[in-house]
Amino acid sequence: MSDSAGGGVPMEELQLATRNHGMPLEALRYPVTPVGLHYLLIHYDIPAIDPSAWRLRVDGCVERPLELSLAELRAMPATTRVATMECAGNGRALLDPRPASQPWLVEAVGTGEWTGVALDHVLAAAGLDGDAVEVLFTGADRGVEGGIEQAYQRSLPVEVATSADVLLAYELNGAALPPQHGFPLRVVVPGWYGMTNVKWLTTITAVGEPFAGYQQATAYRLRRAEDEVGEPVERMVPRSLMVPPGIPDFYTRARTLGPGDCELTGRAWSGTSPIVAVEVSADGGASWDTAEVDPEPPAVGAWQGWRFRWHAVPGDHELCCRATDATGARQPLQPEWNTGGYANNAVQRVAVHVTDAAQSSGPRL
Amino acid sequence: MSDSAGGGVPMEELQLATRNHGMPLEALRYPVTPVGLHYLLIHYDIPAIDPSAWRLRVDGCVERPLELSLAELRAMPATTRVATMECAGNGRALLDPRPASQPWLVEAVGTGEWTGVALDHVLAAAGLDGDAVEVLFTGADRGVEGGIEQAYQRSLPVEVATSADVLLAYELNGAALPPQHGFPLRVVVPGWYGMTNVKWLTTITAVGEPFAGYQQATAYRLRRAEDEVGEPVERMVPRSLMVPPGIPDFYTRARTLGPGDCELTGRAWSGTSPIVAVEVSADGGASWDTAEVDPEPPAVGAWQGWRFRWHAVPGDHELCCRATDATGARQPLQPEWNTGGYANNAVQRVAVHVTDAAQSSGPRL
Repeated sequence: MSDSAGGGVPMEELQLATRNHGMPLEALRYPVTPVGLHYLLIHYDIPAIDPSAWRLRVDGCVERPLELSLAELRAMPATTRVATMECAGNGRALLDPRPASQPWLVEAVGTGEWTGVALDHVLAAAGLDGDAVEVLFTGADRGVEGGIEQAYQRSLPVEVATSADVLLAYELNGAALPPQHGFPLRVVVPGWYGMTNVKWLTTITAVGEPFAGYQQATAYRLRRAEDEVGEPVERMVPRSLMVPPGIPDFYTRARTLGPGDCELTGRAWSGTSPIVAVEVSADGGASWDTAEVDPEPPAVGAWQGWRFRWHAVPGDHELCCRATDATGARQPLQPEWNTGGYANNAVQRVAVHVTDAAQSSGPRL
Repeated sequence: MSDSAGGGVPMEELQLATRNHGMPLEALRYPVTPVGLHYLLIHYDIPAIDPSAWRLRVDGCVERPLELSLAELRAMPATTRVATMECAGNGRALLDPRPASQPWLVEAVGTGEWTGVALDHVLAAAGLDGDAVEVLFTGADRGVEGGIEQAYQRSLPVEVATSADVLLAYELNGAALPPQHGFPLRVVVPGWYGMTNVKWLTTITAVGEPFAGYQQATAYRLRRAEDEVGEPVERMVPRSLMVPPGIPDFYTRARTLGPGDCELTGRAWSGTSPIVAVEVSADGGASWDTAEVDPEPPAVGAWQGWRFRWHAVPGDHELCCRATDATGARQPLQPEWNTGGYANNAVQRVAVHVTDAAQSSGPRL
């Protein structure tokens, strides 16, 4: 499962990296991420779905199994939620040794304005049996993982599935879901890591036993060693990111900036509670200052903007930011390693060279 | 400029690969690529542009320098063109040794329906002087490359710039350009590699001498050795790609398919002329069969669909496809190496395992 520390990224991971993509960090400037800039992680292939033939089945421990067309779902009461979605593997490629999977640095995030039907509304229409303990979501995407041929499946405890937050979304940013985000229907669970938000949804099954499929029992668990059962990966831990200031070098992405006042900006989020503090360091984490943070987000797990006026003096600097949420959880300076490379929310580090003369600085932020 | 053959991809290239992205090959099914699936290569950062303050300057060797607002451009006669765009570096990471830059495999392509004003219309409004030899395009994106701080700039010979094909596009697929594709205005030069299609356009300058800036004289030239002047990279050489059949393994992307008839499908294009033949091999290029190809594209450089009925028998196969254009140019089996890793159109190779039993095959195409 893991690669040697010093080694480069092998062909398998490169194949994943050329398909999937993060959000270029300058796109943190948009409160809602434009389509095409939101991060994407697709386990198998994007399935081809004919929306007129497609149906959503609701079955299992329910009183009235349902088969719903897209038109029937669109006729139900619609809800819109702003939700920040982050891949559970964000930060994986910064772990040492690097677990072998999609090699994210820090950019596997995006915020969408999702419109659809409350899952609870559909579950109520089907009538959950009292013996249902979880709700299982099955996508139309199919592949092999860990040697097992499977459709992509994830479950939620009944109490989460019936909370007011969970959506069956058919629109992103005011238009029909793009193919790559789950057309015609996907699950959106605000505050939970990306893998929870099953795309290309075909079936919702109320189950009487906890789901023990690959994506629940094997993948997406925090383990120090392969033989541990591990804890499930669920809600996003707090993270802040900044728009790298100045201008980049094409190949190294090294940043150059002119001297003087520079407004550092970014976003911060947590899946459990609002962000209550963002701090900024210009010396690699040795000292910290307090940034201004937007008030509570409109919904749990939606990111909040932050800003900090930095007086940039000539020389080399390592900028960092770190967020603290209302539970007191704060980003660590160093990541905690786990076999799957999940939930690495160690602080972002941005090396910046500040020039002597303002004229060679590129555009100011 | 180049990495050792056996080595993995270093952090610099991984940083590029997590920002930029190819088109997942199953998206070859769409004649026009949905927004977010089209490949993206962004040299520096996506600039933030206020469309109300933005102006297009037209200057240099012209009789009437112009400054045009977006509203003024939108009031001019509009044209829509379907154009296939491919990164000049597509295939780079399959070269040995691998030139150090964005590490594309084969997926750096997409087809857009671009709407805007014919460049020739704007040049005529400004009145080109007789001494103009090239038209230079400057974008708002700024960075450092080869040690030189620069705005992204590329030029076209006057005879190409004044041809009917070239667009100043403000829409992609019927909506305003997304930020990542050059909002509010970009150049679209059908048939030419992606770097020609300058994004975030701010200035068009008619020049009396050939432009010798970084992106023209240093980058995007075919060289066998660094000290050669090299030939400029211009029009796309022929290429065909197939939708990989069957289902993938998440990590290795290895494909599994059930036995029996399987329709292989894909697209093929060339920047100089229509595709006249696509051939398919199921034995790694030892023998070839002829695929059915759609008739001539609506415009030069737009891709054409193709299909081939393959009788898949159990075992391991290497599928290949190769295109020939109307000039007689055909994709090679092995790439020709060059220092920048440009224009590698060697045939795509897709390893497929065909199972014994149909039930373990995944969905048929």
